[in-house]
Amino acid sequence: MNDTANQSTDAATGIVTAAIIVIGDEILSGRTKDKNIGYIAEHCTNIGIQVKEVRVVPDDEDIIVGAVNELRARFTYVFTTGGIGPTHDDITADCIAKAFGVSIDVDQRALDLMMPAYKARGVEITPARLRMARIPDGADLVENSISTAPGFMLDNVITMAGIPNIMQVMLDAVTPRLRKGRMMHSQSIDLDHPEGGIADMLKEHQALYPDVAMGSYPTMRGNRPCTQLVLRSIDASELQEAYDGLMNKLQNQSLIA
Amino acid sequence: MNDTANQSTDAATGIVTAAIIVIGDEILSGRTKDKNIGYIAEHCTNIGIQVKEVRVVPDDEDIIVGAVNELRARFTYVFTTGGIGPTHDDITADCIAKAFGVSIDVDQRALDLMMPAYKARGVEITPARLRMARIPDGADLVENSISTAPGFMLDNVITMAGIPNIMQVMLDAVTPRLRKGRMMHSQSIDLDHPEGGIADMLKEHQALYPDVAMGSYPTMRGNRPCTQLVLRSIDASELQEAYDGLMNKLQNQSLIA
Repeated sequence: MNDTANQSTDAATGIVTAAIIVIGDEILSGRTKDKNIGYIAEHCTNIGIQVKEVRVVPDDEDIIVGAVNELRARFTYVFTTGGIGPTHDDITADCIAKAFGVSIDVDQRALDLMMPAYKARGVEITPARLRMARIPDGADLVENSISTAPGFMLDNVITMAGIPNIMQVMLDAVTPRLRKGRMMHSQSIDLDHPEGGIADMLKEHQALYPDVAMGSYPTMRGNRPCTQLVLRSIDASELQEAYDGLMNKLQNQSLIA
Repeated sequence: MNDTANQSTDAATGIVTAAIIVIGDEILSGRTKDKNIGYIAEHCTNIGIQVKEVRVVPDDEDIIVGAVNELRARFTYVFTTGGIGPTHDDITADCIAKAFGVSIDVDQRALDLMMPAYKARGVEITPARLRMARIPDGADLVENSISTAPGFMLDNVITMAGIPNIMQVMLDAVTPRLRKGRMMHSQSIDLDHPEGGIADMLKEHQALYPDVAMGSYPTMRGNRPCTQLVLRSIDASELQEAYDGLMNKLQNQSLIA
């Protein structure tokens, strides 16, 4: 395993890693199509955090607790989405408390965020709504500028809503508190040819630059198989050298103008 | 863990389970947004296979092999997507062979599927293209009616392409060979109210029908918070009873017409 970076080794390498846990039966049944994985992954890449693993798990306490504890030990951060609403199937906050072995109760800070909006709208404070103010002991709140009920961050685990627009404002709210790592730089090349014709050359080029990850992604344009090559590295100058060298080879073979 | 069903216990319960492993750095970086998880999940639900876990993992041999071996022991089937093309970063077939401890080589059956189309198009047979005919020893092929290079099924692991339309024809090709379990039936109710107002009643109703999973999913219609309730069970008559009872309660509270 080359991704067992934890917080102490991160400090030495400058690499900051993350995992995402998507919680919810509705994703696993296919009824709801996840829109959070790609969004969080792209956001993390843009701020220098490398997402190394994603899991989608059911609304099951043992499985959620197990995934949280495994992944928070392996990565700098763990982002969870889903399961923090008011209904009986929203068990994420309790699972996080259990994973950390801390207590959980209605949190005055969360109530202070939620109550003004509820009062203004004349919404009754039911036991179910109070459930959304339950926060594990020791967690910091993550503000929700849309519907007020907050997410939270406990140690290196960030717990957010599943509704995409609410998840997104929570991600923005927590981002200033996250440690950013070395940026992953990338360059891409679009080829009007199938990847089979350049694979051998690309493999040789990859061997010359082991610290530049070279990916080849087949796509279809209409009926024509095309290819996007993506070069990625935390070393911008080595990336540029690898990119220039590859462009030269492609031009010499008349594979690109 | 309540989802440790393996193939022997499945026979007793009639429950057939699956996991999905999405393989590829480009998904974890956010550059490519996955479209396969939701499609496979919905397809499985429709044929009586319950998807219990999804993982997205990088192009890293140890991590792929580890995920395959963990999940194939826990679930009836494991579907993988991605990493079976011709380039050096396509390592899935070799990882599956390693996970099972079997050899892998260019497979004559795969060549027989691929060669006619290559010859017809005048495509050169490079070492890279031959790579796509590498199949782990003992695997059955899964046909690819779009671009011919096949996927494969080895024991309970089904390995498919990452390009969505190719993955989809492979999934169709392998479906007749899969054991189907008891169908999960579902009924849904759309409410024009936020879920906080029905959560306590729903929790009580859930307690009356422990074998009917009741999910509550908040959505926004414009600026209005709404809710979709979804009831799911493999027992159709119990599902109907739980649904009718819930509709009665909602009508009595004037929450639905």
